[in-house]
This record gives sequence, C-alpha cells and structure tokens, in this order.
Amino acid sequence: MATVPLPTEPEADSRVKAVFDDIRATRKTEFINNLWRALAFDPPLLESTWSEVKALMATPSLLDPLTKEMVYIAVSIANSCSYCVHSHTAAARAKGMSGAMHAELLALVSLAARTNHLANGLQVPLDAAFDAAA
Amino acid sequence: MATVPLPTEPEADSRVKAVFDDIRATRKTEFINNLWRALAFDPPLLESTWSEVKALMATPSLLDPLTKEMVYIAVSIANSCSYCVHSHTAAARAKGMSGAMHAELLALVSLAARTNHLANGLQVPLDAAFDAAA
Amino acid sequence: MATVPLPTEPEADSRVKAVFDDIRATRKTEFINNLWRALAFDPPLLESTWSEVKALMATPSLLDPLTKEMVYIAVSIANSCSYCVHSHTAAARAKGMSGAMHAELLALVSLAARTNHLANGLQVPLDAAFDAAA
Amino acid sequence: MATVPLPTEPEADSRVKAVFDDIRATRKTEFINNLWRALAFDPPLLESTWSEVKALMATPSLLDPLTKEMVYIAVSIANSCSYCVHSHTAAARAKGMSGAMHAELLALVSLAARTNHLANGLQVPLDAAFDAAA
Amino acid sequence: MATVPLPTEPEADSRVKAVFDDIRATRKTEFINNLWRALAFDPPLLESTWSEVKALMATPSLLDPLTKEMVYIAVSIANSCSYCVHSHTAAARAKGMSGAMHAELLALVSLAARTNHLANGLQVPLDAAFDAAA
Amino acid sequence: MATVPLPTEPEADSRVKAVFDDIRATRKTEFINNLWRALAFDPPLLESTWSEVKALMATPSLLDPLTKEMVYIAVSIANSCSYCVHSHTAAARAKGMSGAMHAELLALVSLAARTNHLANGLQVPLDAAFDAAA
Repeated sequence: MATVPLPTEPEADSRVKAVFDDIRATRKTEFINNLWRALAFDPPLLESTWSEVKALMATPSLLDPLTKEMVYIAVSIANSCSYCVHSHTAAARAKGMSGAMHAELLALVSLAARTNHLANGLQVPLDAAFDAAA
Repeated sequence: MATVPLPTEPEADSRVKAVFDDIRATRKTEFINNLWRALAFDPPLLESTWSEVKALMATPSLLDPLTKEMVYIAVSIANSCSYCVHSHTAAARAKGMSGAMHAELLALVSLAARTNHLANGLQVPLDAAFDAAA
Repeated sequence: MATVPLPTEPEADSRVKAVFDDIRATRKTEFINNLWRALAFDPPLLESTWSEVKALMATPSLLDPLTKEMVYIAVSIANSCSYCVHSHTAAARAKGMSGAMHAELLALVSLAARTNHLANGLQVPLDAAFDAAA
Repeated sequence: MATVPLPTEPEADSRVKAVFDDIRATRKTEFINNLWRALAFDPPLLESTWSEVKALMATPSLLDPLTKEMVYIAVSIANSCSYCVHSHTAAARAKGMSGAMHAELLALVSLAARTNHLANGLQVPLDAAFDAAA
Repeated sequence: MATVPLPTEPEADSRVKAVFDDIRATRKTEFINNLWRALAFDPPLLESTWSEVKALMATPSLLDPLTKEMVYIAVSIANSCSYCVHSHTAAARAKGMSGAMHAELLALVSLAARTNHLANGLQVPLDAAFDAAA
Repeated sequence: MATVPLPTEPEADSRVKAVFDDIRATRKTEFINNLWRALAFDPPLLESTWSEVKALMATPSLLDPLTKEMVYIAVSIANSCSYCVHSHTAAARAKGMSGAMHAELLALVSLAARTNHLANGLQVPLDAAFDAAA
C-alpha cells in the first residue's frame, strides 16, 4: 500500500528517467528502491528530493560516507520512519557497517533517547557554559 | 526552573559525591553541569544514568568520541530535547567539531528529517532488498 | 493485528449501531473504516471520539474541508501515525486534493520538518517581535 | 511570550468566568495557571478543553488520580511539552507523588524510550501472540 | 543562548548580505529574525535554507500563502519546535489569520494529535480502500 | 523483515542462552518474543537491555506492575513504536488490565496528546508556582 499511485512504467516520463539514470550511475547499481518509484508520481518533487540527497549523501564532504549514514539512521529511528530505518541501515551495511558497529549505534541512539526523556522530565535549566552565542 | 529541587549541597550525600568525583576525573574538569546536579535528588538514578553514559560515551569503542557526540546531537534534535542539544553540542565542540562540521551535521539531520516526513507521508512499501533477516 | 479485539458483529450493540449509522449518514457512504470498528470495543470511547471528529471535520467552519484534511495529514505525518496518514490522505483525495496538491503538501510538510530540526539544532533565541502576549 | 494575547481581565467575559469558577471549585484552589489564561482568547476552545480535562482528570474512574497524572507526565515528556511536564509534575506532587516515586517514574519513562528506539532501530516483526484481534 | 555564535556584523560577509537583502526584498520588511542571523555562521547553509523556504513559502503555488503558514504551524507544533511555532504563527497573523482561525487551527491540530495517539494505541490494520497504489 | 539477521539457533551462543533462560524463569513462560531474538545478534546489547528491563519491570518497586506497563504503553504510543505498543499491551492484559481500563488508558493518553499540542501551539509561559527548584 501507499498513499500515491506507484507508476508501472515510471521511466516513460523523461524527467523521471533522467533522475533514475542518475541514481543508477551515482550508486553504481540497477536497483531503484520504492521511495524513488513513489516520488515519480510528481517529477518536480522527485528531482528536488534526489538533488538534495545526492548533494549531501553522494558527494565527498567533511563527514565520511558511513558516518553520514549512521547519523541518518539515528534521526530516522527518533522520527519513527520505518522505511528510512530500513533503507539507511541497508546503505550503512553496504558502506561497511559491521554487526558490532550496528549494535554500538543502536546502543548509542537508545542511550540518547533515554537521557533525552530524562532531561525533558527534569526540565533542567541550561548551563551558561553551553552558550556558543555569548 | 526544574521539576525537582536542585540541592544546594549535593555532595553532602556520599553517593552523590562519589559520582561527581568520577565525573570530574573522567572528564578532567571541575565543571558539573545541571543535569547531574538535578539527578542528585535521587542517588540511585544518578548512579545508573552516569554509569551508562560513562560506559558508552567515555570509554573507547568502535565509534570515535566525536562521531558518538554527533549521533547524540542528532537524536536529541529529533527528540526536541533542548538541554541535550546544548550540552552535546558543547561536548562535540570540545572534542574538535569545527563550525563547518557543525553546519554539515545540521544540514544532514535536517535532510534526514525532510525525507523521514516524505516517506511517512508516502507510506512507501518496504523493498525486499532491505531485509537483513532473510 | 490490533491491540483490541475487532468485534465481528459490532452493531449488535445499540450504542455502536447509533454511531455507525451517524457515520454513514454524515459521510454519505456505507463504508466504516477499521478505526471505528476497533473503537467499538468500548462504546463510550467510540462515542466521544466520533463526536469530536464530527464536530470539527464534518461541520462547516472557518477553514474549508480540504484545508482541514491537509492540516490533519500534516500532523499525522509528523506524529508518525501510519493509519492516520492513509485514512486522511484518502479523505483529502475524496474532497478534491489533486496529485499536484498532494505533492505540494508533502513538499511543505518536509520543508517544515527540515527547518524544525534546523531551529531545534541551533536553539535560536526567540525574537521579541513574535510575542503576541506583549 | 506566547502566540496569543494573554487577556489582562479574562473574567470580564462571562463564559471565561464560568470556566474559571469551575476550575477553582473543582480544584479547590484560587490558582488558575497560564494555560487556562491563554485559552481565554477563545472561549469555545477554553470550554471544550476544560470539559474534557475535567471529565477525565477530575472525575473518579478506574485509574486512580495519581496514576492518571503519572501517565500524563509520561506522554508529555515523550511529546516534549515543557509546559505540560511542569504542570502535571506539580499536580502529581500535590496528589502524593514522593521524590522516590518521581525518580522511579522518570527511570521508567526513560527505559521505555530506550527500548522504543531500540525496537524502532531493529524493526522487529510482530509476534502473532500479541494479536488481540485474532 | 544558542549552539552557534550569533555574528554581530553578519552582513560583513557578502554572501550573507546577499541573502539578507533578498529576505528584506521578498518580505518587504527590514526585520531579519534570529534564525537567519544564526544561520549566518555558515553561508552555504544559510543560502540553501533560504532558497528552499523562498521557493515554497514566498512563491505563488497551488496552496494559498495562509494555508501554507497554517500547515507549517501544524508540523512545527507536532515536532515541538518552539522557535518555529512562534515565527510561523506571527507570519500567519501577518497574512490574515484571525484569532478565531487560530483557535480553529489549534483545535484541529489537537484533535489530530488525539486520534493519532488513539490509532497508534489501537494499532488498527489498514483498510484496503485507502490504497492509492492499487 | 528486520534490520538485523534473526538467528535460527540463537541459544547456540551460551550468553544468549543464559539471557533466554533468565527471561523464561523470570516471566514463567516458554515464550521468547522477537525483540529478544533479534537482540541475540549482539549478546552484550541483549544482556544490557534485558538487565535493565528486568530491574525495572520484573522487580518489586514503588509502582505496581500494572501501572508500570501502562506507563510503558503511554510512552510507546507517543514515540510511535508499533512493536512496543503491541508487546506492552499484551503484557498489561496478562497483568490484569481489563478492556475498560485499556479504554481509559487510551482516552487519557489521547487527551494528554491533545493538550500537549495545544500548549505547544500556545507557547504559554511557565507559572512560577510549578517550580520545584525554588
């Protein structure tokens, strides 16, 4: 199920085909996962989404590719996006995340959630030492 | 303000003093931030919280210390924990996060949030290729 | 699966039947979706829930019916309620949301999520100009 | 600051006065907290909100009053509602929550958050044994 | 307080000045709110954020400007972004949202949150009728 | 599907077997639900998770066992953890939660969500009376 029609021949649209070709070339795989197939229902939204994901996730930057995937997993867990947790965990494994690293990441995300809830429960005042704007 | 009394002499309690001493020794600083001062209202909760934070955040492991702080920031932003965002951003800076790395982290967390909401809006079916349990 | 039993003959209960009749009359359809069938496990909860949904969603008010469905979708995405995203997207389409409007709504919700996470990461101080209570 | 004007003489409006009188009588106190003062900007919203809070929180029911406040705190922490955490923690204390009970509640909410994030990270399939609808 | 330095002379940087000039021209006001001042710590992040906000929020599209602000408020409330709730409520008022419309929006967002939590508690199975991909 | 392999013979690992034996003994049942089977992919994470869950949920404390399960359900709903809502609702029923208590719990969680969103929309200032740290 999905909230939009999943086109059966998405690449009949030339804008969709151009994005799918770029996904295949950038990721060096024939596999196009369902998020992109669903976004094909609106080519401008597909284009803008892929353009941003490519710029951050498939372009060399200060953070290494695996760290970026792990941060992405962390946010996706906290936002309870089932699809995103699946897709970015698969991507992180493909980029070298071992089972032990995955376990450490899950322990870390869970610990952060624990202290997030603790601090939100205590409503602790901010320490002046944290202020970067001072 | 806080939802618990902030004890004025927390270290009069020997269990609190032991934890505070360990925080100072582990972090090599005299500074004890307000979260720990607030947790002093219940020494067992203070002990168990510090014990877990120390085990994951102040002990060498597969992920390097700065990566761990950045994952912590990411989860804290998504869970909207103002105190945690402040404390872990300060910690990440102390461990070497530059302004440019901070900007990249914020761009990455924001992008993940964007696609999390997009995927949750589309309710895309999972791709079989993501299944690690197969 | 569900966390409550889904009664096979919910309308055997006269209070449930009265609510289901009102849903059919209000919505001009024979279709009763699963949320209401599940709520039949507790007639008072069914009654109070339908009563509030009807008062806001099926009664003329300042906001037009389609705008109300789009706001409902937005909140449901941010709260990660899969069932609600599905049911309110179907309702919005029935009230005239085109594919292009759906795409714009998703782009908007995603952009809001992006800047929400950015602002929560920056912990920007409030501008005095925003104060409506001044 | 607030996003609505806080009326200086809210009880000049007879509908607001009626609700405030009922709050004072129900809670046996002269104190009207800011949430109600802010809601006075729209008397119908004030009336419907108080009516529901009173029906659930100030009326004898299956769950005892303190348990209800603790559940309320738990949800408010997870939804990151700073105002609500403060107001319901104060209410719980007024209904008998000791410091040790508060500490246990916070430990429990934090543990739940931890395993919520762990399960959302693992994306574990549901066990058939959990199905109440079978 | 903030997690980044708030530059005192942000427009000394020509890229920042260009964005601030465009904000002033687009919004027809001299007022630059703190989010943009904080983003000045990293000109590329400032540019990409403004570029997306401008494209969606300050460009004519299928949804009218006030509807877009109300959807933005809805998402910001659900994501608990205090800054965003303040800034977009102020923007919605500037675009014509009356007090009564604001009250209706808050009632609607609150109702959606209520049924989101109800449906997430019931874990109701999806109705086949909702499937747009069929 | 899951993001980790579900081992077919998890108890071939002696650390996993020890935890599973303790779960069976503590809960007085042969049933080991999927969360624990999935955690078997990393025995240290399995051990630390079970150790904390056992300490809080299976050990007599100030809050009674059913109250603890209901708080757990409340947090799991707000965090949108489908698996956790299912598992803890089943646990609460096993500990005596009737259908009517379940309905009241859901009404309460939904009401809290409603006022959480209302207060976050109003951004009401805190009342000095709430301050426990004063």
